[in-house]
Amino acid sequence: MKALNVEEIDFAKSGGLVPVIAQDYSTKKVLMVAFANELALKETLKTGYAHYWSRSRNKLWMKGEESGHVQRIKKVLVDCDSDTILYLVDQKGPACHTNKPTCFHNYIPLTRGKNSK
Amino acid sequence: MKALNVEEIDFAKSGGLVPVIAQDYSTKKVLMVAFANELALKETLKTGYAHYWSRSRNKLWMKGEESGHVQRIKKVLVDCDSDTILYLVDQKGPACHTNKPTCFHNYIPLTRGKNSK
Repeated sequence: MKALNVEEIDFAKSGGLVPVIAQDYSTKKVLMVAFANELALKETLKTGYAHYWSRSRNKLWMKGEESGHVQRIKKVLVDCDSDTILYLVDQKGPACHTNKPTCFHNYIPLTRGKNSK
Repeated sequence: MKALNVEEIDFAKSGGLVPVIAQDYSTKKVLMVAFANELALKETLKTGYAHYWSRSRNKLWMKGEESGHVQRIKKVLVDCDSDTILYLVDQKGPACHTNKPTCFHNYIPLTRGKNSK
């Protein structure tokens, strides 16, 4: 594990935003995917709560700022080419606005290959 | 869990591509993030091996096609607004081109908030 600083994150690659995965620190469930710009990442590191950048509303938001379903940050990981971020979080309440525990509650059946060798 | 078909995925939102997270089915580690278009997703479902769309090379690729570090698909999950996909996989060998088990092997230290209440 190498320690990076915010300035090393490759925001330029995708117009100032990087995708962020939020994963539950305890259950390891993938909770949601959103985007962060440099401001959102800095707010996350400073406050210890997950912040994102809303592309549709063009503004900073803290997850749970309205619902109360905040994400307390345990770790902030970065991938090998520094263009994707992984927040490991303690999720308070459901992560999804549908009140399901995770946003990934739908699936596509495999055409073939499932459970086969 | 609701079953969806490929036509229900919102590829249009981001110019034909959706972000895809690959997560290890057993360890639940997040392995990598890449992108898929409709063709890559269909190939994944059909073959049972993770396929992606390379933005830099502008071509379909199967993870591990050169390295042998393929990802056998266990499940394909979709998020609440159908614009992000989660491949649950059996990862053969390391997921990262650096030969580390996952691409998320760097971190950013928190400025504050870590482990505090």
